[in-house]
Amino acid sequence: MAYPNTMYGSTNPETQISPEVQQWFSTVDRDGSGRITAIELKSALANGQGGTFSDTACRLMIGMFDKEKNGTIDLFEFQALYNYINAWLDVFRGFDHDNSGSIQENELNAALTQMGYRLSREFISFLIKKSDPTGHSTITIDQFIVLCVQIQRFTDAFRIRDNEQTGIITIGFEDFLGVALNCSV
Amino acid sequence: MAYPNTMYGSTNPETQISPEVQQWFSTVDRDGSGRITAIELKSALANGQGGTFSDTACRLMIGMFDKEKNGTIDLFEFQALYNYINAWLDVFRGFDHDNSGSIQENELNAALTQMGYRLSREFISFLIKKSDPTGHSTITIDQFIVLCVQIQRFTDAFRIRDNEQTGIITIGFEDFLGVALNCSV
Repeated sequence: MAYPNTMYGSTNPETQISPEVQQWFSTVDRDGSGRITAIELKSALANGQGGTFSDTACRLMIGMFDKEKNGTIDLFEFQALYNYINAWLDVFRGFDHDNSGSIQENELNAALTQMGYRLSREFISFLIKKSDPTGHSTITIDQFIVLCVQIQRFTDAFRIRDNEQTGIITIGFEDFLGVALNCSV
Repeated sequence: MAYPNTMYGSTNPETQISPEVQQWFSTVDRDGSGRITAIELKSALANGQGGTFSDTACRLMIGMFDKEKNGTIDLFEFQALYNYINAWLDVFRGFDHDNSGSIQENELNAALTQMGYRLSREFISFLIKKSDPTGHSTITIDQFIVLCVQIQRFTDAFRIRDNEQTGIITIGFEDFLGVALNCSV
């Protein structure tokens, strides 16, 4: 199979919320509405390099769980997102040996393989080129997270249409357009 | 057919460049490199409401023609893009009867139908909701252009895989992922 078999983390209200997550969420959710926006998310998350994630990254992250399409997520969705991001950051750090905040093409390939993807070398080159149009052939931690969110969302959309897990789907125009637009910023 | 049969405007160097387009391009391309970026594009284009397009809109527009994925377009691509945008603005203005800079759901449906798309009412509702998460059920001129660029790009990607023009395609995981990522910001 060309993609991993994991689905989104649990957003079940029975899920145990860690005290750290609870505290972060409460700090950010100033009006106590119980839901946070991409802008609030940005202020809550460190990117592991002493900075914050880009607006694009934050909007894509909110979009992973924002089922009502109102641009917000609740505490349980935040917990699931937090788990995702930390897992991705762990993978990234594992390949960023000099802690420079960026990884090379070979390392991106190894990182995605570790995450369960089986992608061609041409495709990895395309990913690097798309993420870093300046031609340095490296990918930063922020670009990596954006890529992980996008790949995760498109993979989930593909998987639910790939009933027999063949890695090939048949899809109509409107459905295709909906998936594509739904997972884009 | 659920989608129109037009492809991208001509980017053939034989194409006649209008003096207006030539002048705009030259003004923006200050270093005379012959290629402009999304940021330069933003300074070149008025959105027809006395403002400029958003960064997202400009990056998506560059991406329509940026075959080398280096974030720039040349004069001929700019001419083609300019023609697209003006055609879309004409459609928008035709439905924005009070010149308010925004149109309603019914008008968006009529606009997309005029452009050759056959989309369900549910899908139009989804488009409005995605474009305007504040729930006003209207779409601004900037949101409309972003939507047109995205729909155009995904439609072209779909069409070249829909050899028999049935409105249904069969697509593998990596190809799907590539299309989806390639047409996203």
